[in-house]
Amino acid sequence: MKLEHIGIAVENLEEAELLFEKLLGVASYKRENVESEGVTTSFFDCGNVKIELLAAANENSPIAKFVSKKGPGLHHLAFESKDIKSDLKDRKEKGFTLIHEEAKDGADNKKISFLHPKSTMGVLTEFCQDKFK
Amino acid sequence: MKLEHIGIAVENLEEAELLFEKLLGVASYKRENVESEGVTTSFFDCGNVKIELLAAANENSPIAKFVSKKGPGLHHLAFESKDIKSDLKDRKEKGFTLIHEEAKDGADNKKISFLHPKSTMGVLTEFCQDKFK
Repeated sequence: MKLEHIGIAVENLEEAELLFEKLLGVASYKRENVESEGVTTSFFDCGNVKIELLAAANENSPIAKFVSKKGPGLHHLAFESKDIKSDLKDRKEKGFTLIHEEAKDGADNKKISFLHPKSTMGVLTEFCQDKFK
Repeated sequence: MKLEHIGIAVENLEEAELLFEKLLGVASYKRENVESEGVTTSFFDCGNVKIELLAAANENSPIAKFVSKKGPGLHHLAFESKDIKSDLKDRKEKGFTLIHEEAKDGADNKKISFLHPKSTMGVLTEFCQDKFK
């Protein structure tokens, strides 16, 4: 299962974009709001994988809670699924806890679902699948 | 700058290897001790990127401190450098804080160096370069 992107929680998206541009040597190539999640995202292409900066769009955003509790930093790993329904069923049968039983709309034109970090040794894990594949 | 691997701090390497094998659908392909860092590592190949599990080999290991403070989970991102000396100098000039001024021996036959997470918005960042390239 290929790594699709790494999610990084940030406090201020503008400042984070400038910093990660200096760090990675490439600029963000797009921003996208995901209203259902209360986040604004910004994507960097590292060649073999994407980095997704995540900033809270409101106080109730899961990113606002994460940053308030743990500070900014590494948030989740997202793996590319070719059949997300089947992969979620399989991982549930193997004992992992699904945060959402069914995949829902995420950023970057994808269906997404998360496995609870309590079942993955602290690593919030996303499966994602392109909507039109 | 290509992502080479993602480091994940774990408490028990045997249990973590079994869990990540179930999660990723591939088995660990090698283990390696890095005595200078006080860690035992275990590597998974996700096709486009590696995942490196890191378990403390002793109580003074940075991984023991990390897990004790934050719990197991995402630990660092490592980017592949073609000229680590030049990249470290460049990032220092751009305002990032180097944990080690010069690259040192790491796992997987690499020279490695870390940027301090206080200068990278909480993301512990490694640069690494193959020793024989």
